[in-house]
Amino acid sequence: MRAEIITIGDELLIGQVVDTNSAWMAQRLNEAGIELYRITSVHDRREQILSALDEAFRSVDLVFTTGGLGPTKDDITKHVMCEYFQTHLIEDTRVRAHVEHLYADRPEILNRLTATQWMVPEAAEILTNRVGSAPIMLFNHGDQMLFAMPGVPYEMEVAMTEQIIPYITNKRLHAESIPRSWGIIHKTLQVSGISESELAIKLIPFETINQGDPSLAYLPKDGIIRLRLSSYGDRTPASMDHTFEFLKRYVKDYIIAETDDPLEVIVGSLLKERGATISTAESCTGGKLAMLLSLHEGSSEFYKGSIVSYANSVKSGLLGVTEEMINEHSVVSEEVVCQMAKAVREQTGSDYSIATSGIASATGGYTEEEVGTVWIAWSGPEGTTAKCFHLGKLREKITDRACVKALVEMIKFLRHEESKKVNSKTVWNII
Amino acid sequence: MRAEIITIGDELLIGQVVDTNSAWMAQRLNEAGIELYRITSVHDRREQILSALDEAFRSVDLVFTTGGLGPTKDDITKHVMCEYFQTHLIEDTRVRAHVEHLYADRPEILNRLTATQWMVPEAAEILTNRVGSAPIMLFNHGDQMLFAMPGVPYEMEVAMTEQIIPYITNKRLHAESIPRSWGIIHKTLQVSGISESELAIKLIPFETINQGDPSLAYLPKDGIIRLRLSSYGDRTPASMDHTFEFLKRYVKDYIIAETDDPLEVIVGSLLKERGATISTAESCTGGKLAMLLSLHEGSSEFYKGSIVSYANSVKSGLLGVTEEMINEHSVVSEEVVCQMAKAVREQTGSDYSIATSGIASATGGYTEEEVGTVWIAWSGPEGTTAKCFHLGKLREKITDRACVKALVEMIKFLRHEESKKVNSKTVWNII
Repeated sequence: MRAEIITIGDELLIGQVVDTNSAWMAQRLNEAGIELYRITSVHDRREQILSALDEAFRSVDLVFTTGGLGPTKDDITKHVMCEYFQTHLIEDTRVRAHVEHLYADRPEILNRLTATQWMVPEAAEILTNRVGSAPIMLFNHGDQMLFAMPGVPYEMEVAMTEQIIPYITNKRLHAESIPRSWGIIHKTLQVSGISESELAIKLIPFETINQGDPSLAYLPKDGIIRLRLSSYGDRTPASMDHTFEFLKRYVKDYIIAETDDPLEVIVGSLLKERGATISTAESCTGGKLAMLLSLHEGSSEFYKGSIVSYANSVKSGLLGVTEEMINEHSVVSEEVVCQMAKAVREQTGSDYSIATSGIASATGGYTEEEVGTVWIAWSGPEGTTAKCFHLGKLREKITDRACVKALVEMIKFLRHEESKKVNSKTVWNII
Repeated sequence: MRAEIITIGDELLIGQVVDTNSAWMAQRLNEAGIELYRITSVHDRREQILSALDEAFRSVDLVFTTGGLGPTKDDITKHVMCEYFQTHLIEDTRVRAHVEHLYADRPEILNRLTATQWMVPEAAEILTNRVGSAPIMLFNHGDQMLFAMPGVPYEMEVAMTEQIIPYITNKRLHAESIPRSWGIIHKTLQVSGISESELAIKLIPFETINQGDPSLAYLPKDGIIRLRLSSYGDRTPASMDHTFEFLKRYVKDYIIAETDDPLEVIVGSLLKERGATISTAESCTGGKLAMLLSLHEGSSEFYKGSIVSYANSVKSGLLGVTEEMINEHSVVSEEVVCQMAKAVREQTGSDYSIATSGIASATGGYTEEEVGTVWIAWSGPEGTTAKCFHLGKLREKITDRACVKALVEMIKFLRHEESKKVNSKTVWNII
């Protein structure tokens, strides 16, 4: 089964909003064995929506639209759908009851504009929007289907998860002819410490044998390359596992993870395995490591807290970085960052820590040449080590890359401690 | 002038990567007076790329593609462009010299795969990619133009800023017939404390007079609604200013900002105006406020640092939250969050502070009912105040909304202190 997403809204075309809905929906569709063929973003304009619908129904079985279902004048999707499917709006008493219930304790919202929310196209099947007032609409178009959803991410996500994916799966189960397919399978390897070109050279033998089946994609970002094997129905899970193992042999020295999990999740798992905790002391990363480590459910099991010492006075006051230390070594130095890492472990009582100090812009007496220099330290029960990186000249990139480096090296740090226990190797050599 | 963006890459269609390039490019195009008509994302597949090019050249003057220009096998854009524009690859000595210079100190990268980077379509004009090895290609198609860029955001951004936008602007300046146009103008008002429906009711008189010219869009997110007026060439800047002032009158009690600046930038400006500094003490927001406040160039002028006290032991150790206080009031309470706000001001020496403590999931003895409860405190030289919010049940949403509430109320806090000085009103009443 093939799908297209049409995202509707001027805000997407003027760059006021980044379309995060499509990537989220793409993941859910893939999990359900549906291939996303194309994404199209158009303005809130009648002709554009009509022509996007035409174009989509020429290529795919399932069309998903988001956006343009709100109660305000700029939202025209419902009216355009009526035109396309040659139907008209009628009042839906079930939607009305739902909306009235939803805003029972906020009667001021139940005004005449919200009331437009329970006017729905007669030809559409209406699915409940549990968390909002805009109804989710299903239109049948011969054997094809279109689902129209609000553009608000949370409402779209609940609708997809609770209504639409189960609806499609259920319908497919009862369809007379189920296509013989193993479903869509992606398997991702994360590697680090090698350039994309060098990696491709290493993989020439693999690609020669593999002949593009399953397909192999390279996704480099901020010092990590994700290698993704994809199959769209013709490979069994066991055969994909086999190819994945085969792929791993060629890049084994560079593997950071054998899943597509975010790096902070991998750090979290390694810590949870050993019942250990972590904290961070951040200068140039400004709290981003803290944010990442606390982002996912269950992070309180391993994450203790952080000290973001953006100002030098905070480095002195809370992290024991003395004025002498700064004068002698400068604030972006091995000595300072190691002191920060050690101090934050003491202050928070964590087993491990990461500390960052770097130059993100040519202010405060730094030269353009020095911008991008970042010291990172990792500390644990066995000791503290630090490394210096040069991460380019772009402020935002420096921060992002510093976080990737901090987490990648933390993963190595934790993994090699593990092997150290077994092999009695020292941990510091490999960093 | 009208443009279309075609983003090429399987990773976009399986949801492994969020397309942030398009929104960034949309902003730059709008600034240059070019309307972005449509965004299309397709797989790394020959037929799909060819048909997307056909479709785009039917509707727009300028086509921008990103992606598929890397040295690895999954990157096919350059070959498909050759097919579409009926040309073939030749070696470009200028690109070769550039790539050899770029990797002068990393000879291992200059292997035969990187060498494919200086093979370019004969029919294309080549623009320098200052920061990467994939050449930027310009194809002429009658009066229309196509720019092919790498998908790596940084390389695309540099190419757009330094090469492509100046190229187009320059070409337009020399074109014989310049269309009489005032350029694309967007003006955004950010409002808070009112629902989208209520807002629309308030704006009925405005919309009646305005008649959709300029167009008005409503963009609600996490408790903020952005109201955007847009004109695509037929309104003068002065006339847009006039309509904007007119719009403001209808919503004046709810205005948070008269620009589309992020909330943390507005907080930063207000602080810089009075030469004051800020810090944060975060529990449930886990460092996200710290990250936001340190995100932008110049933040070291007003941002001191943060204590992320995810674990209760950190709240006690660094923020003076006593066990008695937790036992008597619970950790998510007015007393605790006010203590955190006051303590972090002392610890960091900042003038102002924000503290958060909330329940982001039903673990650690909390019930499902309690999830979403967040206490936030704001502290300044005049005193400390706190407020309790109920922010839904979704972990990630709770954090995002808490940050929005924290910053919106901080803006009010700072603004009303300003008016307080003038009118001798107390500041706490309005929170």
